[in-house]
Amino acid sequence: MDQLTISTKSKTYPMYIGTDILGQLPQVIKDTCQSVSKVLVISDEAVADIYLEKVISILHQQYDKPLSFIIPAGESAKSFDMYYQCQTYALEQGLDRSSVILALGGGVVGDLAGFVAATFMRGIPFIQIPTTLLAHDSAVGGKVAINHELGKNMIGAFHQPNAVLYDIDLMKSLPKIELRSGFAEVIKHGLIWDPDFYNWLTEEITSLDDLQGEKLQYAVLKGVSVKAKVVSEDEQEKGLRAILNFGHTLGHAIEAESGYGKITHGDGVAIGMIFALKVSENIYKIDLSSEQIKEWFSLFGFPTSIPQELDKTKLLERMKHDKKATSGKVKMVLLKNIGETVIQDIDDDKLLFYLNEFR
Amino acid sequence: MDQLTISTKSKTYPMYIGTDILGQLPQVIKDTCQSVSKVLVISDEAVADIYLEKVISILHQQYDKPLSFIIPAGESAKSFDMYYQCQTYALEQGLDRSSVILALGGGVVGDLAGFVAATFMRGIPFIQIPTTLLAHDSAVGGKVAINHELGKNMIGAFHQPNAVLYDIDLMKSLPKIELRSGFAEVIKHGLIWDPDFYNWLTEEITSLDDLQGEKLQYAVLKGVSVKAKVVSEDEQEKGLRAILNFGHTLGHAIEAESGYGKITHGDGVAIGMIFALKVSENIYKIDLSSEQIKEWFSLFGFPTSIPQELDKTKLLERMKHDKKATSGKVKMVLLKNIGETVIQDIDDDKLLFYLNEFR
Repeated sequence: MDQLTISTKSKTYPMYIGTDILGQLPQVIKDTCQSVSKVLVISDEAVADIYLEKVISILHQQYDKPLSFIIPAGESAKSFDMYYQCQTYALEQGLDRSSVILALGGGVVGDLAGFVAATFMRGIPFIQIPTTLLAHDSAVGGKVAINHELGKNMIGAFHQPNAVLYDIDLMKSLPKIELRSGFAEVIKHGLIWDPDFYNWLTEEITSLDDLQGEKLQYAVLKGVSVKAKVVSEDEQEKGLRAILNFGHTLGHAIEAESGYGKITHGDGVAIGMIFALKVSENIYKIDLSSEQIKEWFSLFGFPTSIPQELDKTKLLERMKHDKKATSGKVKMVLLKNIGETVIQDIDDDKLLFYLNEFR
Repeated sequence: MDQLTISTKSKTYPMYIGTDILGQLPQVIKDTCQSVSKVLVISDEAVADIYLEKVISILHQQYDKPLSFIIPAGESAKSFDMYYQCQTYALEQGLDRSSVILALGGGVVGDLAGFVAATFMRGIPFIQIPTTLLAHDSAVGGKVAINHELGKNMIGAFHQPNAVLYDIDLMKSLPKIELRSGFAEVIKHGLIWDPDFYNWLTEEITSLDDLQGEKLQYAVLKGVSVKAKVVSEDEQEKGLRAILNFGHTLGHAIEAESGYGKITHGDGVAIGMIFALKVSENIYKIDLSSEQIKEWFSLFGFPTSIPQELDKTKLLERMKHDKKATSGKVKMVLLKNIGETVIQDIDDDKLLFYLNEFR
């Protein structure tokens, strides 16, 4: 088992990564939360079907009545209504400031349960138990949120978990397309920060089947290490943290313009990363081997160009309305080299030109 | 004009206290918020009627289109529905992470607008412009919240304002009963921390008419200074901050049991403070001049005993379900002397005895 320490201004907490470590949950709660009055597991229908019984029986070793609240699977659960329902359940069951919430699931569960924990009685502890590869990323860093009908993640907070327990075995039940989606974020962490890790990835991971056991554990450990370094320097997204947005400006626009759920987050980010590499090569007159990277991406089945049916002008509009845009100009994260990022303002007409060039 | 610096772990910010200082609002925004994109004033119907036009015209000196959102007056506005409406308005009007929210009103407006600011795009700046004496207290310290049907202030956050602008002149429109309600918190700050200030109060303030001009400004300054010291040591209510609850355990219970709005917060706290003084005298076998204090309280029209129609057993139950109770036992803030607090667990039967003794 690997252990990583995430240090942010507001909290320092451990992340445990390994195989068959779910059984250590009671010990993790004990080590990271003070005098726990009640434990509430928030999970979604799909995850609960496979893992909830096991988690509850593990919790029973230490707690009398572990509680659980199950939300529907999918992005639509990150709603005001579901947020309110979680709060109501927590109050009805008598949770207090010494209670802890466990988020058992992917990013949706982590975001919603985290925001419930962030705001229940002005904030109680929570522990992330990610069940997807994508959530290795979202579970660390404390960004929690729900959606508003006018935008994703518009209502939220920064609320760090007390611990993250990442059991590699839980990935076994993950569909390949979800595994691929999460892998995009792993690649991103290599590209923006760690050339050695990035080289290791290109050599050791050449098919989705490589993403298991020790290799998967190493990939998660290295990926999260980058995330941990970035959020430790910039918890509240005021500077450095923006580099985590590499591939996301176009990625988010493609996701939104396709209609959420039509394309996975990671597939959108994969296209966005290739685009960012191409733009970087063009602007800085450098060679980042974008064509080779594109070929490597296709080994996993990642899409590597913008879906034909999407209108470039509409994508540009979406990119301009990103939550990170403050002046109306698109800010893109570009690379000067593998591991070396630049935040670049790009004029609309230039960006539209690149979008039209990009195949 | 007096200026006070509030230092908490998460933020350090100024509070300005004085007469005719509302005009300095644009400068205060400029000094405490970076590159402001939009300004949104949240206020309630009652306050907006008197002050909104003036505030908007002051803001116009610096901002093109100051926005405003008006909520109904009264505690019922601290609802999920109103919270959602504020978020929707902010999104529709294009507020972003560089926008600032101004809370113009009493505690309800400050709590709601503060929670909107705390969670809009994971937190944007806000400035408190209290219009009641009671809000001199709530505007400092960063506690923001909305109500859930199962309890007051159950959903919230700690989100410090960027500044507090306290214009004494705004108190002129305040009904006497509201002035008295706020004065209870001023007295509390003297009793729990500052004997000299407390003595000054008993000598200089002997009727509500004394609460104006320089005397009011001094009272607010000294009261807030105590609050500032306490929250600077304990932002998230994990220890010392509990002493601010002096008079509140019974006070809240009386408010709730009477039905919210039937008795003001300050009147409830006044009864609670007399009760806490009596219990302190009884447990520690000391003399805190509780009878003299009671007489002084009656000069302002404060109630000084539990309303006859309230059932003591039900009050006890309410006290046990306080958000601060974690073990099921009532924790009361008592005094060993003026300015010297003790947090004391009290058994149910003992507490019921004191409640029955208390006339």
